[in-house]
Amino acid sequence: MTTSAGQLTPSERILMGPGPSDVPARVLEAMSAPTVGHLDPEYLIIMNEVRDMLQQVLQTKNQMTMAMSGTGSAGMETCFVNLLEPGDEAIVCLNGVFGGRMKDVAERCGATVHTIETDWGNVIESQAVADAIKAHPNAKLLAIVHAETSTGAHQPLEEISKLVHDAGMLLLVDAVTSVGGLDVRVDDWQIDALYTGTQKCLSCPPGLAPVTFSDAAVQAMDKRKTKVQSWYLDLSMIRNYWGQERSYHHTAPINMTYGLREALRIVLDEGLENRIARHKRNHLALRAGLEAMGLNYIPEHSLTSLNAVHVPDGVDDANVRSRLLNEYGIEIGAGLGPFKGKAWRIGLMGSASSQRNVMLLLGALETILTDQGVSVDSGAALKAAGAVFAS
Amino acid sequence: MTTSAGQLTPSERILMGPGPSDVPARVLEAMSAPTVGHLDPEYLIIMNEVRDMLQQVLQTKNQMTMAMSGTGSAGMETCFVNLLEPGDEAIVCLNGVFGGRMKDVAERCGATVHTIETDWGNVIESQAVADAIKAHPNAKLLAIVHAETSTGAHQPLEEISKLVHDAGMLLLVDAVTSVGGLDVRVDDWQIDALYTGTQKCLSCPPGLAPVTFSDAAVQAMDKRKTKVQSWYLDLSMIRNYWGQERSYHHTAPINMTYGLREALRIVLDEGLENRIARHKRNHLALRAGLEAMGLNYIPEHSLTSLNAVHVPDGVDDANVRSRLLNEYGIEIGAGLGPFKGKAWRIGLMGSASSQRNVMLLLGALETILTDQGVSVDSGAALKAAGAVFAS
Repeated sequence: MTTSAGQLTPSERILMGPGPSDVPARVLEAMSAPTVGHLDPEYLIIMNEVRDMLQQVLQTKNQMTMAMSGTGSAGMETCFVNLLEPGDEAIVCLNGVFGGRMKDVAERCGATVHTIETDWGNVIESQAVADAIKAHPNAKLLAIVHAETSTGAHQPLEEISKLVHDAGMLLLVDAVTSVGGLDVRVDDWQIDALYTGTQKCLSCPPGLAPVTFSDAAVQAMDKRKTKVQSWYLDLSMIRNYWGQERSYHHTAPINMTYGLREALRIVLDEGLENRIARHKRNHLALRAGLEAMGLNYIPEHSLTSLNAVHVPDGVDDANVRSRLLNEYGIEIGAGLGPFKGKAWRIGLMGSASSQRNVMLLLGALETILTDQGVSVDSGAALKAAGAVFAS
Repeated sequence: MTTSAGQLTPSERILMGPGPSDVPARVLEAMSAPTVGHLDPEYLIIMNEVRDMLQQVLQTKNQMTMAMSGTGSAGMETCFVNLLEPGDEAIVCLNGVFGGRMKDVAERCGATVHTIETDWGNVIESQAVADAIKAHPNAKLLAIVHAETSTGAHQPLEEISKLVHDAGMLLLVDAVTSVGGLDVRVDDWQIDALYTGTQKCLSCPPGLAPVTFSDAAVQAMDKRKTKVQSWYLDLSMIRNYWGQERSYHHTAPINMTYGLREALRIVLDEGLENRIARHKRNHLALRAGLEAMGLNYIPEHSLTSLNAVHVPDGVDDANVRSRLLNEYGIEIGAGLGPFKGKAWRIGLMGSASSQRNVMLLLGALETILTDQGVSVDSGAALKAAGAVFAS
């Protein structure tokens, strides 16, 4: 006797956590368009359109730009397994969860990993990179997180890129929480391999991982002595499906691709500059409001897409998050690692980055914190944020 | 200056190829439900419901039953990378594209792979398995394809399972094209690791790979000496997200999970037995029609979900497929490997397995083959198929 679950009725949340972010109706609607085959002439055109739009959003002319059939972490693994093989050395920058994950993934490729570490919340200093390069001149690549989702730190890349290339190494960048919301200039900054996810500033549901490889990265791939350890993520085969040959590799996630295509259209219709400016303005307003409420940011260099703040002393972290969810339908993120129970991660990503959401969250948070006995200057947060919007 | 693609307008195909299959409106609609977070209490319930329904469809009580965040080939890789490590031996059965892919994936895990080969279209004989086990008694597992999508061959598993377990090995099964359309009894047949895809007989878009591991497979995982080479597919971590701990691993493809959930509801609402019987009846009708038209099946033991036939001599394969697509909106599949240009693969999977589709395809094919000068007994195909439906 079999039994099936009831009808699906997920709540309409406001997704202000570290991702996924709110998905516009246009994207959800696109995902429910009729499924066609993965070799259908219409689908092959859609793949080209997605690549073309990804190139624009990533500000690159890289031919090898595509969406991998997995979530952001599959994008991470794609970059490492294609570029590293046993015997290689790599330098990984570690200042949060995702740097740690990169180290783990690189080691699983059989590479010797050297790390540059700094406290969570900090960014990696150029001098530390210069020192590491000097100490490990044979490293094949340096990997760094542009937008550390666990701490909210916004990593500058230009100077580091120069050091890496002067040493003849490749630069591998995690841009999961920046692409589509912050400036990410793949070509100008000479990024050799970059991955991102769909569910952050692109405001598409999770399920695909856009990646881009420079010509230098492709050459490094072509010089490998061993097969890529992951068949599923092996770009030497997948590029023949995204390329002219259209060779069957695996069945692509058709309807997810529809969703990404629509999400990219929305980004480009708004315009990259406008979108980046919107993320900045809403971040500044939220920041002004949170600080007026007495909350402190964790990173000195904060992302505009993610606001990581310390939970005030004596406040019940879980209660606040659960009240936000149950009373307001607002999801914010908890702290990870050393920040477990001690941080909130408030996303303003893609469609969720709006004046409406900033003001709603500030109002809700003020109410809940006041209930918890925190001394909050009534109305100060909304006033401070309002002043930013009015400026 | 950026430019975006136009509005998305995919055609409404009838998907009768080797997958994806037609997706019911209910599933497409479920996929467009509001996105919630991957740690939202509502989503955690949805994961439990999906596991519970998967267990029913796979006829297993395996606790480790879940949907991996990738397409069917990611499911294949999941089974191999978690069970094999360098130094292991494996026996892989090879009678089509997917056996060959399993061999490739197993070798990339650092395992020594022994193969049992037979001609494409044939199934693997028990005697060949017995011989291989005798020759390679230290193999950790035997991998075999239940439903070989490249040839349409339907592999019996019960006798082989007994041989494998008598030798103390694990049985790993590819059931991508059988689950949800043919009988797949994970517990009764003692399958230790099985993967499938969503886009075949489950009639959900591609993007997730259900997998199930027996207790014996979990124990083998737990005895590993090395880390799983794929971080993304490492079940030792992912089981803590699907399990009680709910530890964050990666951001699950929320809306794809909605789709799978709805697809599983449809399977269970129809009832597994009814669904299997429907696939069989429609296959028998199509087969009667195709044979009445003079077409010959490639495999002796054919799947009911996939019908692989030889392209008749003198017929222009590509022209037939392209006319079916352009005039009727019907997708059928081309041959792969040695059957390139020489076979058609006609799927009757999930929602696409219907009397309507059988009759439409037979009529369309008769018209096109007649145009190409093939001598077809007019009306014989529809009559033969009709007789099966009437019986």
